[in-house]
Amino acid sequence: MHFKETAPDWFEQLRTSICDTFEAIEDEHTGPFCERPAGRFERTAWERPEGGGGVMAVMKGRVFEKVGVNVSTVWGEFSDKFRGEIPGTTDDDGGFWACGVSLVAHMHSPLVPAVHMNTRHIVTANKAWFGGGADLNPPLPDDTDTSDFHGAFRDCCERHTCGDYPRFKEWADDYFFIKHRNVARGVGGIFYDYIDADDASYAFTRDVGETFRTIYPALIRRHMARQWTPDQREEQLIYRGRYAEFNLVYDRGTRFGLMTGGNTDAILMSLPPEAKWP
Amino acid sequence: MHFKETAPDWFEQLRTSICDTFEAIEDEHTGPFCERPAGRFERTAWERPEGGGGVMAVMKGRVFEKVGVNVSTVWGEFSDKFRGEIPGTTDDDGGFWACGVSLVAHMHSPLVPAVHMNTRHIVTANKAWFGGGADLNPPLPDDTDTSDFHGAFRDCCERHTCGDYPRFKEWADDYFFIKHRNVARGVGGIFYDYIDADDASYAFTRDVGETFRTIYPALIRRHMARQWTPDQREEQLIYRGRYAEFNLVYDRGTRFGLMTGGNTDAILMSLPPEAKWP
Repeated sequence: MHFKETAPDWFEQLRTSICDTFEAIEDEHTGPFCERPAGRFERTAWERPEGGGGVMAVMKGRVFEKVGVNVSTVWGEFSDKFRGEIPGTTDDDGGFWACGVSLVAHMHSPLVPAVHMNTRHIVTANKAWFGGGADLNPPLPDDTDTSDFHGAFRDCCERHTCGDYPRFKEWADDYFFIKHRNVARGVGGIFYDYIDADDASYAFTRDVGETFRTIYPALIRRHMARQWTPDQREEQLIYRGRYAEFNLVYDRGTRFGLMTGGNTDAILMSLPPEAKWP
Repeated sequence: MHFKETAPDWFEQLRTSICDTFEAIEDEHTGPFCERPAGRFERTAWERPEGGGGVMAVMKGRVFEKVGVNVSTVWGEFSDKFRGEIPGTTDDDGGFWACGVSLVAHMHSPLVPAVHMNTRHIVTANKAWFGGGADLNPPLPDDTDTSDFHGAFRDCCERHTCGDYPRFKEWADDYFFIKHRNVARGVGGIFYDYIDADDASYAFTRDVGETFRTIYPALIRRHMARQWTPDQREEQLIYRGRYAEFNLVYDRGTRFGLMTGGNTDAILMSLPPEAKWP
């Protein structure tokens, strides 16, 4: 079964509630840079010539240095080259339909973790599935943050029969790893894919989105009023260089998008506003 | 024929003469940042567990924000996956020997072009060849610089029977292109590869190195005393983001090195000291 009729609305609702929460954080901020105006999302709709499109929302604020939230619903045919790599496609039918929400936040403060979240629903000739995940990317990791982030997604998984937390956590550790540096991109989270679409996996995917919308703002609010040092900022910029390396060298969505003529601005929205390789 | 006995010495000599020239530029500088100490190269030797090694020289100065010059001589066996992609390898013999020099310079001033240069000699079971090239990467292109840089390499090519300038220039235009942005990485130069090794192609490759060592310092000296504006610096940092995208997404040497367990620090020496994706 598939959820083509309802999933796009859900991803848009999630996008809207996350953006509202992030704008509220901008409004209530009293820490560094609070003399600047509170940020607001700017939304840009885009169309994909082969079918579908999306809306890219970007905010450059006083807490969020750059945050992008992209929703898209696209369809078309996988090229012969990709066809074999995608579950449920056949030699005769490389058709696909996909929708999802993707979010990356880079913060002014090196004491506030950066984050990535994505959930998606994909339908091919013989398979329909959900995938997604979220991982925390603190330039200066904080054990309590890490534990709370993992705990939130563990609890989320445990609320659902299809939520296999140990497997999804290990999947994130394996996936968000910078092989050429032999370091993790961040402190992990969960990653899952190819979970057959049914009412249970749809409910789980919605809960992953809600869990993110609850836990990440809590971590921001915990640290956003703290002062940071120039050395901490420098560490953050170097950390971001590695984040950019991961996205450009390994990230499946980024490479897939760039190689198949996707919307470059929406795909590369994830790159950090500033980075260093000193 | 091959030049295993002499080419490594040549590449090292070229490295040394370029580094000397760049340090002389640091010494004579009277423009912005001249109150800082003149930069000096720091050399770090590295070994490759599978065979060979190199020396990475990096200078962070007052004209050169970050310049890396790497020489290496390495050998081993291509994996089955790469074997088919490399000329002269056979199913039974994936052995290779390679040496070369690789240089990337990122300058403090957005008015001084960044640059890349590489020359290499590669030997496999049934083929030995030279390859190389240089391309100019000005954040704010200057028609005279562009014309002088192209002219120097055109003259160099025309001094050698194997120097097919129109082909090598077009090869650079095709290669140094950021497909997902539909923009060139810079203003081009020359790129060549798989030129059968003989006395003529070795002489040509040496001349490419000498040509670089002559023309690039001339362009630096032309602009290095000029003041720049914060807006020009911002343009430079955004330009560098695209440069990083090229290197991490497309550059053959970078991807090949990262995927085959090369020396990450030496490979990623090419990344800009600071970049922005605002």
